[in-house]
Amino acid sequence: VERCIALAQFSETPGAITRTFLSPPMRDAHRLMGQWMSELDMESAVDGAGNLRGVLRGRDASKRLVIGSHLDTVPNAGAYDGILGVVLGCALVEALGDWRPSFDVEVVGFSEEEGVRFGVPFIGSRAFVGSWTPEAMRTADRQGITVRQAIQDYGLDPDGIDAAHYSRCGARMLGYLEFHIEQGPVLESLNLPLGVVDAIAGQSRWRVSFEGHANHAGTTPMSLRKDSLAGAAEWIVGVERCAHAVPSLVATVGRLQVSPGAGNVVPGLAEASLDVRHAEDAVRLETVRALLDAGQCLATQRGLEFRAEQLLDQPAVPCDPRFRDVLGRAVRRAGYVEHRMVSGAGHDAMIVAPHMPTAMLFLRSPGGVSHHPDEAVLVGDVAAALESGATFLRELEKEL
Amino acid sequence: VERCIALAQFSETPGAITRTFLSPPMRDAHRLMGQWMSELDMESAVDGAGNLRGVLRGRDASKRLVIGSHLDTVPNAGAYDGILGVVLGCALVEALGDWRPSFDVEVVGFSEEEGVRFGVPFIGSRAFVGSWTPEAMRTADRQGITVRQAIQDYGLDPDGIDAAHYSRCGARMLGYLEFHIEQGPVLESLNLPLGVVDAIAGQSRWRVSFEGHANHAGTTPMSLRKDSLAGAAEWIVGVERCAHAVPSLVATVGRLQVSPGAGNVVPGLAEASLDVRHAEDAVRLETVRALLDAGQCLATQRGLEFRAEQLLDQPAVPCDPRFRDVLGRAVRRAGYVEHRMVSGAGHDAMIVAPHMPTAMLFLRSPGGVSHHPDEAVLVGDVAAALESGATFLRELEKEL
Repeated sequence: VERCIALAQFSETPGAITRTFLSPPMRDAHRLMGQWMSELDMESAVDGAGNLRGVLRGRDASKRLVIGSHLDTVPNAGAYDGILGVVLGCALVEALGDWRPSFDVEVVGFSEEEGVRFGVPFIGSRAFVGSWTPEAMRTADRQGITVRQAIQDYGLDPDGIDAAHYSRCGARMLGYLEFHIEQGPVLESLNLPLGVVDAIAGQSRWRVSFEGHANHAGTTPMSLRKDSLAGAAEWIVGVERCAHAVPSLVATVGRLQVSPGAGNVVPGLAEASLDVRHAEDAVRLETVRALLDAGQCLATQRGLEFRAEQLLDQPAVPCDPRFRDVLGRAVRRAGYVEHRMVSGAGHDAMIVAPHMPTAMLFLRSPGGVSHHPDEAVLVGDVAAALESGATFLRELEKEL
Repeated sequence: VERCIALAQFSETPGAITRTFLSPPMRDAHRLMGQWMSELDMESAVDGAGNLRGVLRGRDASKRLVIGSHLDTVPNAGAYDGILGVVLGCALVEALGDWRPSFDVEVVGFSEEEGVRFGVPFIGSRAFVGSWTPEAMRTADRQGITVRQAIQDYGLDPDGIDAAHYSRCGARMLGYLEFHIEQGPVLESLNLPLGVVDAIAGQSRWRVSFEGHANHAGTTPMSLRKDSLAGAAEWIVGVERCAHAVPSLVATVGRLQVSPGAGNVVPGLAEASLDVRHAEDAVRLETVRALLDAGQCLATQRGLEFRAEQLLDQPAVPCDPRFRDVLGRAVRRAGYVEHRMVSGAGHDAMIVAPHMPTAMLFLRSPGGVSHHPDEAVLVGDVAAALESGATFLRELEKEL
């Protein structure tokens, strides 16, 4: 926790925590963290995608476990989102003492997960798995600086981004383990320190609209109205009811815009967002279909026009069942409850999972708060994650 | 109808109809309409409030009937709102031929009803009944020109506004009759040309808010949310259901603003408008109370904060029962159905009614359209109004 707070001093904005892709404070973060790594006998370097990578040599360099998360932040962030996972990787190496596992342990601090600087997230982990494209290198930030230029300006070789691929070390990847704060209220509500992630939820985003007729609020009797907002409101109530009825599903209408938007005019147009997430794609897609059908049905009953446009259809990413079971067992053997849960937010693990066995451990977020200066962790929960991680390494050793 | 179209050419905006308080095109409207009045043997003048007033002398100058409406328009208006009522007054005088009633007939074109230029409506009719105050004379338009200055610039004496009072003519006021387009869809839906107005509805306007917690749409399970929009939506559905259940009541949520308003964030705050209208104040106030109670109740169930702030509480204005009955009888004797209805919008009649017997006749609005260039009337409906008006004058004569 002290290390996370030490890293939080490196910020682009005085008095707040903001650290974007390869910004000057990122260099300070790399320096300090690299120093901790060398004190732990790790060889560290920044790769062509700006990821800080430190390796502890094990007894057999042909196998490697990767532990990591990201070092960048959102604007006005807390001190733990991402960073805690990288710091915990180092703490885990420290906890090994003189013991060396039969595999290398790499701790990676990904350069970019939040997508703040260029509007595209996961630059670091995409380069790590080889899904970062030459076209994406030309994406520019608000100052017109491209990803390529930013890498160059940092003193790195943009053509070296290919060398960031995990396969370049020559070792067989045993898997990827990510520690991360939950960023939600579930573990706190259950009074549990840790959560073993089963999957990262798939996500549907839609834009829907109900169109009726704008009319005078005084002269148009109720029976002669085509009120778009009343229709949208009935649908929103249905969205909430449906989401409650499907276990572990979340559905959100976060945006609603009403036109013309005057108190004395019956609304002619209501436009809403729909965000649906679930660990099983079939459940998610079936729910979305039912919600859109309900919108159409309500609109027809009310003489409104209903339209729906898909903005995102991102499949769920399951964690590796065997790897997750090893992690779950480690949590139990370390003396904690193994609570299995779904991640509703995206993480680097989502990018890495298609390429190697991946597991993820959540730490309780006090107040469910994240992406906010009040973001916190409990010291006891960090200890629980550390004990579970150390047990995980020994369990993994046994499995080989 | 041709005269209304002729007046529509006098506009501040080329290609559209916009004529605000004492603007240059209003001078043209006064000139043309004054010319029609003199052709009808009427003495006409513009009073200190900018009202055009023409008098046809009857057989007894100690009694007077006033027929009128307003000559100003909203921006990008139609050709009939207000204007038709003034033109119909003149047409009625014309229809008398050589017959003179036993009372003077005054036709008034009020200078200002819409409130466009100064943000305060009814300048003309308020001056006519003496409820225009010296303070209100200092209200300024967007160019910083006050009502007083505008009157002076037009060549009138702002201190003469007191002389606009109806009592200055010395005659006893028999009453005020206003013809106006319905501006709503009711008469068209009933396939009727005319409506006799019982009352101008009272109006309540409120601002309400539901406050919950903004949370991550992915990481916050349905059961741990305090979704302000879901609460507001349930309330809006209830507002509509309640309004349907109370005969002749209209209730509208025309504005709804959601914060933070991002698709992936559970809304923390939802602010809505409420507009409730009914001819009986007790019904209106009871309904508002029930709707606010329902909002509070819903909010409590959902763990939200509910707040409500009153913006307007305008009592209903009933038409004079005797005068209205004379008008209703005239409509029937002229051969039309006497349909009684409530005006959901405000009119000059609302300002005049507390001071003298007032009646109002609505003409069907095709498509229910008003405040729009597509605003229209049917020629047959105008003829029906004219016949009914002529019969009204003879019925009134008999009553005296």
